[in-house]
Amino acid sequence: MLNQSSALDHLFQALADPTRRVMVERLCRGPASVTELAAPFSMSLPAVVQHLQVLESSGLVRSEKVGRVRTCRIEPAALRAAEGWIQQRRTMWERRLDRLGDFLAESGEPAKTIQGEEP
Amino acid sequence: MLNQSSALDHLFQALADPTRRVMVERLCRGPASVTELAAPFSMSLPAVVQHLQVLESSGLVRSEKVGRVRTCRIEPAALRAAEGWIQQRRTMWERRLDRLGDFLAESGEPAKTIQGEEP
Repeated sequence: MLNQSSALDHLFQALADPTRRVMVERLCRGPASVTELAAPFSMSLPAVVQHLQVLESSGLVRSEKVGRVRTCRIEPAALRAAEGWIQQRRTMWERRLDRLGDFLAESGEPAKTIQGEEP
Repeated sequence: MLNQSSALDHLFQALADPTRRVMVERLCRGPASVTELAAPFSMSLPAVVQHLQVLESSGLVRSEKVGRVRTCRIEPAALRAAEGWIQQRRTMWERRLDRLGDFLAESGEPAKTIQGEEP
């Protein structure tokens, strides 16, 4: 539970940066070398590598060096874990709203009148 | 685009903390006062309020003070925005995988043999 929580900390932390999100987006289109990943950014290669390290330690990206080229790939299970956490909470919220709607329908109140509970 | 990116920075940053995720989870079950939100944690009220401020400035939570009680609610649109970003990238990745599978099927190669590309 603690490990899962810590994994989510790292996943969301990794996604909380625009450069890293562009890298994730690029890798969702297919594997890329570090040089290819760095291409859209006007930052030093060490800065790019640092972002990559955050992505790798979060589990979102893995890389493999063959000869002089390091190829990076997305790790879809990590994307699904982050998405899954949010999705489960959203579903929880929507179910609660449905139950509230049912309750109001049974008691003859229009659901709309509950302030701040509309989807 | 920049604003949307900055909004995602704040959303993922807000979700990158276990205390804040417990608060989000609690609010998905229904509105709660600050005291109710603080109950499961062995931390000072100011520390709880600080976490709440991060959640509010990310747009995930909004609160309203009536009399002496501040009531907090989840903002489902913000949850959906964070979920949507990840979902779109995951879909992008899965489509690429499907195209790759089709290509290999047409060329008579079993898709399984592509290392590191299995879902």
